[in-house]
Amino acid sequence: MRVLGVDPGLTRCGLGVVDGGMGRPLRMVAVGVVRTPASDGIGERLLALQVELERWVEEYSPDAIAVERVFARGDVSTIMGTAQASAIPMLAAARRGLPLAMHTPSEVKAAVTGNGRADKAQVTSMITRILKLTEAPRPADAADALALAVCHVWRGGARSRIEEAVAVAARRQGVGGRR
Amino acid sequence: MRVLGVDPGLTRCGLGVVDGGMGRPLRMVAVGVVRTPASDGIGERLLALQVELERWVEEYSPDAIAVERVFARGDVSTIMGTAQASAIPMLAAARRGLPLAMHTPSEVKAAVTGNGRADKAQVTSMITRILKLTEAPRPADAADALALAVCHVWRGGARSRIEEAVAVAARRQGVGGRR
Repeated sequence: MRVLGVDPGLTRCGLGVVDGGMGRPLRMVAVGVVRTPASDGIGERLLALQVELERWVEEYSPDAIAVERVFARGDVSTIMGTAQASAIPMLAAARRGLPLAMHTPSEVKAAVTGNGRADKAQVTSMITRILKLTEAPRPADAADALALAVCHVWRGGARSRIEEAVAVAARRQGVGGRR
Repeated sequence: MRVLGVDPGLTRCGLGVVDGGMGRPLRMVAVGVVRTPASDGIGERLLALQVELERWVEEYSPDAIAVERVFARGDVSTIMGTAQASAIPMLAAARRGLPLAMHTPSEVKAAVTGNGRADKAQVTSMITRILKLTEAPRPADAADALALAVCHVWRGGARSRIEEAVAVAARRQGVGGRR
């Protein structure tokens, strides 16, 4: 199972690709960060992010995409841009019919360090050990993207199957809006 | 000048196309609403919205796209979806090099009714009169999308030119992030 983890953002969007499976060793395939200049318009920034993300998806052919769940809290001025940036990996997954998973920051921290309140340095340190990297991934957004992918390998598979079953059941019962 | 106004949302996304110009009569070209079922995944909903919005842009060839500016306030559970939905018209504009404008709800209300705190009924009533429609556009999201387009025709042209000049100046001075 190959997972592309995405830590969404307009200024910096972390991307990390990890191979692994339940009870199998994990391997880092790729890691990086996409930056878009704050002086560009929001549309141009989203498009630049999409072009780069699509390139990653084409090159690494992930089996699933895991995105950090964005909350409406923290710095209000950046949260809208982060939410808009998170639409890009969601579209990429939907267009290809790939499973899309969302994990909260505390789920990712708990999966990787055992502590849902771990700080960025702890996450970077643990992800470096878990993936047996010779140096720590930088910036923190890149390490976070790898942590998301690892979290998804470890807990995502089972969870997506449950979520899919719930979604199918909800559709059968006609829950939610209709076109 | 033809403007596509978009009132972003996942449950209902209002779309309105208006022809007009400074000191020229306004004409409604099209109005509608895109709905995506709440039982679908977020990726599928964004993709369905994108498919429909792209169809509108292809069919009506707007000269500019005006999107309601989303704020991180109000109902936190829907605000993230609204922000993600707003990425779709932003991408559509950027992909075609079309000017993208964002107007706040109070700017739109002030432009259309003269009162930045007008309620939905007042906006719908005024937009029906301004565009000389035989019946009021429904739902409110459709009327809001037309109001956005009208607002942009009336005040958007001049403003986008100023914003563009500011953006160009900022780029020359190296303000903001770098790739």
